[in-house]
Amino acid sequence: MKQSMTFIPTLREVPADAEIRSHQLLLRAGYMRQNSSGVYSFLPLGKKVLQKIEQIVREEMDNAGAVELLMPALQQAEFWQESGRWYTYGPELMRLKDRHDREFALGATHEEVITSLVRDEIKSYKRLPLTVYQIQTKFRDEKRPRFGLLRGREFIMKDAYSFHSNQESLDKVYQRLFAAYSNVFSRCGLDFRAVIADSGAMGGKDTHEFMVLSEVGEDTIAYSDSSDYAANIEMAPVLLDEVKNTDLAKEIEKVETIGKKTIEEVASFLQTDAKACIKSLLFKVDEKFVLVLVRGDHEVNDIKLKNIYGAANVDLASAEDTKEVLGCSIGSLGPIKSAENVEVIADQAVEELVNAVCGANEEDYHYMNVNPGRDFSVSQYADIRFIQEGDKSPDGNGLIKFAKGIEVGHVFKLGTRYSEAMNAVYLDENGRNQPMIMGCYGIGVSRTLAAVAEQFNDENGLLWPSNLAPYHVHLIPVNMKDEVQAALAEELYSSLKKQGYDVLMDDRQERPGVKFADSDLIGLPVRVTVGKKASEGIIEVKIRKSGEMLEIGTDALVETLSEILGK
Amino acid sequence: MKQSMTFIPTLREVPADAEIRSHQLLLRAGYMRQNSSGVYSFLPLGKKVLQKIEQIVREEMDNAGAVELLMPALQQAEFWQESGRWYTYGPELMRLKDRHDREFALGATHEEVITSLVRDEIKSYKRLPLTVYQIQTKFRDEKRPRFGLLRGREFIMKDAYSFHSNQESLDKVYQRLFAAYSNVFSRCGLDFRAVIADSGAMGGKDTHEFMVLSEVGEDTIAYSDSSDYAANIEMAPVLLDEVKNTDLAKEIEKVETIGKKTIEEVASFLQTDAKACIKSLLFKVDEKFVLVLVRGDHEVNDIKLKNIYGAANVDLASAEDTKEVLGCSIGSLGPIKSAENVEVIADQAVEELVNAVCGANEEDYHYMNVNPGRDFSVSQYADIRFIQEGDKSPDGNGLIKFAKGIEVGHVFKLGTRYSEAMNAVYLDENGRNQPMIMGCYGIGVSRTLAAVAEQFNDENGLLWPSNLAPYHVHLIPVNMKDEVQAALAEELYSSLKKQGYDVLMDDRQERPGVKFADSDLIGLPVRVTVGKKASEGIIEVKIRKSGEMLEIGTDALVETLSEILGK
Repeated sequence: MKQSMTFIPTLREVPADAEIRSHQLLLRAGYMRQNSSGVYSFLPLGKKVLQKIEQIVREEMDNAGAVELLMPALQQAEFWQESGRWYTYGPELMRLKDRHDREFALGATHEEVITSLVRDEIKSYKRLPLTVYQIQTKFRDEKRPRFGLLRGREFIMKDAYSFHSNQESLDKVYQRLFAAYSNVFSRCGLDFRAVIADSGAMGGKDTHEFMVLSEVGEDTIAYSDSSDYAANIEMAPVLLDEVKNTDLAKEIEKVETIGKKTIEEVASFLQTDAKACIKSLLFKVDEKFVLVLVRGDHEVNDIKLKNIYGAANVDLASAEDTKEVLGCSIGSLGPIKSAENVEVIADQAVEELVNAVCGANEEDYHYMNVNPGRDFSVSQYADIRFIQEGDKSPDGNGLIKFAKGIEVGHVFKLGTRYSEAMNAVYLDENGRNQPMIMGCYGIGVSRTLAAVAEQFNDENGLLWPSNLAPYHVHLIPVNMKDEVQAALAEELYSSLKKQGYDVLMDDRQERPGVKFADSDLIGLPVRVTVGKKASEGIIEVKIRKSGEMLEIGTDALVETLSEILGK
Repeated sequence: MKQSMTFIPTLREVPADAEIRSHQLLLRAGYMRQNSSGVYSFLPLGKKVLQKIEQIVREEMDNAGAVELLMPALQQAEFWQESGRWYTYGPELMRLKDRHDREFALGATHEEVITSLVRDEIKSYKRLPLTVYQIQTKFRDEKRPRFGLLRGREFIMKDAYSFHSNQESLDKVYQRLFAAYSNVFSRCGLDFRAVIADSGAMGGKDTHEFMVLSEVGEDTIAYSDSSDYAANIEMAPVLLDEVKNTDLAKEIEKVETIGKKTIEEVASFLQTDAKACIKSLLFKVDEKFVLVLVRGDHEVNDIKLKNIYGAANVDLASAEDTKEVLGCSIGSLGPIKSAENVEVIADQAVEELVNAVCGANEEDYHYMNVNPGRDFSVSQYADIRFIQEGDKSPDGNGLIKFAKGIEVGHVFKLGTRYSEAMNAVYLDENGRNQPMIMGCYGIGVSRTLAAVAEQFNDENGLLWPSNLAPYHVHLIPVNMKDEVQAALAEELYSSLKKQGYDVLMDDRQERPGVKFADSDLIGLPVRVTVGKKASEGIIEVKIRKSGEMLEIGTDALVETLSEILGK
């Protein structure tokens, strides 16, 4: 492609509202432009990278036995009403009315449409399993669109759905797509982890998120420093410390702690450690109040709490509620008196405490030498805290570290959530109706593009892996007015194209500095410069990533490229 | 692809609401399903055909020097307000509000978005011309969605836009894309015509529609029986008959014509011909009333009328208006008395009439021996009638015939309609701001799929051209329980795939009759049947289109396929 024919509007300045590297560089290098908040146009370079990612996704999905189809974006409200999500999805689901005042959703996801389609066409176990996918534009009206393509309102997704007559079949397809996803992100060159994620009450084994490790990620991952274990921090179970506390219990004592509120203040004042304190928090679990205890250096994990109670909502109680239910302020809470009024649940680490400190349900007083079991009883001990850096990895191998991640993929065992709500049943071998068992699987295609840009850049611009780069080679005649240079560039352009290389040739009448800066910004793997030595048949090859420069004869170009690009 | 792995829900019955062949067959053969009125899912077979058409479009557009990008479907209202179409587009444009109550249109077309994008990035004539395209889902809330993919509300379009600093550049790109479109539809195997279409006041040379000839088309084309001339009937100019009428004028006579209203009744009663009558119709041209005269056997072409007056609206006057303005009923109108009250315009053929018949502006009376010029005067004679079958072709070659057409493409010289409204200007060589000159170019991709299905089918099903067929070969083991047949089929499946053939293998446990009927319905170019002679290494090859059957040895298969498919 000649640069004069295409549309690559580069920018020297960093756009004001672009906070992160990928967003800044994709704008600056002319890969995309914003239309409205969270809505983008992919310019020719961006579109080419998108297509390369889509092709990888397609190949891996096809290999995994999924078949491609294409469902509509306009989805009649009735489907969403059947599943119930019309009422629960909230303002993220964009809605509109047609000219006859019928309501529609703009596809944010396609569980409803595919369930309706399969329900209407598949009646027998003989036609199962079936795995379908599509690569399609999705719409979600994010509250705060940000970070460019990482959190947009219109974006490109690969979504897949599988239908089964038994759990084993779902497990098999889940594993197959898990492997396909690993292949996709590996082929994109990404540093990623498959992370155990929250699947609500279903247990952590049934859903994984594929996270690209990045400082700008919005999720925190807990991973082992010695194994491939990784989980969303909400999901990582905590192993109980095997070292038992053998101190002898002392007599309980009420002490004055004037003005000391936080764990740190109290521990310091009483010359002890946060680890020796009990943190007491009143939660509202659906409609019921529960006092939750964790060790002073730990944090309550409300998702674990939610799962234990099978609750829809778990929130910290307000100051007013706390006063009303337990007769004291939030800063004075403790289990001893509270247990008379509310259920008490404690983290497993609390059970091991001996001679601990806790609030006295009374302003400016704490108890010392408190012993769980002796001084108060709890309804249950459970794993209800967040894992922390330095904790043992849940798989027993190594210690936990934290990292930020960008979610680029998600595999999920849906079970019968949609098939039951929408009556998608099949006749089993015994002629009985059974709800289909489903899985769903997503890849953020445009988000993956941004994640690659986020991982592959330097101070001068983007650094595309050669299989995703919009072109392999940036061919730059330094001076287009120099006939020898122009002619040699044209010749190389044609011959490289014939050899199967994608070539972008900068045929613009621009100063060399502008051309080189644009070239670094755009970030193709190899730059070939045709300059003053053109008349001697000598050109310069620059490897974008390493910055390495080679002067070679034109006859060595193809071999040099093949070495660099592995092609 | 194994049929057990994919999703091809065939139907025996013709779906009740599918009126035309393509719609019926695409549903019955499992290429697509309706979601809601005018909104479809493309099932795996349909998606594959779509992709093949898209690939052809892409290749031809790239060859023509256009570059691909991708603009969003969510378009902020402000763009459409700038162009003015927010107020004029009507209910076909789907509109919605986001969570912040900001208004958006769902892209029905992208003139506004691309003009805004190019306006922001291109400032100089040095960066022009530019031609971009996208293949994308479009939304139009049709009043009466019908004929399946031919008139849907969500559909796939290739839309292209070009920007120029001078008219010659636009003309060149227009010609290049005209040629690309011809290539696209030729490669799809379609019988089509490039038809001169209505471009409003700009004149007929500036827009062409690509029409697939089909009985179910919604447009009528006038084409020459001896040249490649073709035009939308609204657009075809009428050549004046060179044979002059040399009759002598007689004296005008008022005759009683009790109860005779129509041209046919009057002509028959007065023992003359419709060709000797003047048809008089009162039109409202914007706010002005005009009496329009055509020969009795001709029809007024209101688009020509509109163009002559540069009017926004041209409508027949109501009975009430006619009574009020000319004091008589619609059936009694004539030019003689009307000329005193309104402007009279006449078709050029009326000027040639001698001793004609016309209404007398009086119930039950007509004039005979009326002579234009002598008995009434007109403001102008012009070409204001529809062309008719049998008329001379406007290019002077042959006679006009009519055909119905499905519009699958459109090329249009927009001029500065959008660049002026949206201030998309560039600096010319002299440093002066000029509005960019634009062209726009569309192909209905999903409509093209339906048009191909409409042209290629027989009583048993679809008949895909081999370059659009979802698979080249339908491989059918007659009895999957027969181990020899199953093994041979597997072997052929693998070896054909290795040879680069797309193969669909019917590995279902179905009766042969079901498999063969489905195969005809699906319509792949070649069926390969593995039956009882499998043990002898003999298989049957059927050419779907001709019905021809061959029994061959397995070793001759690749050669046979290569002959049939030309591959």
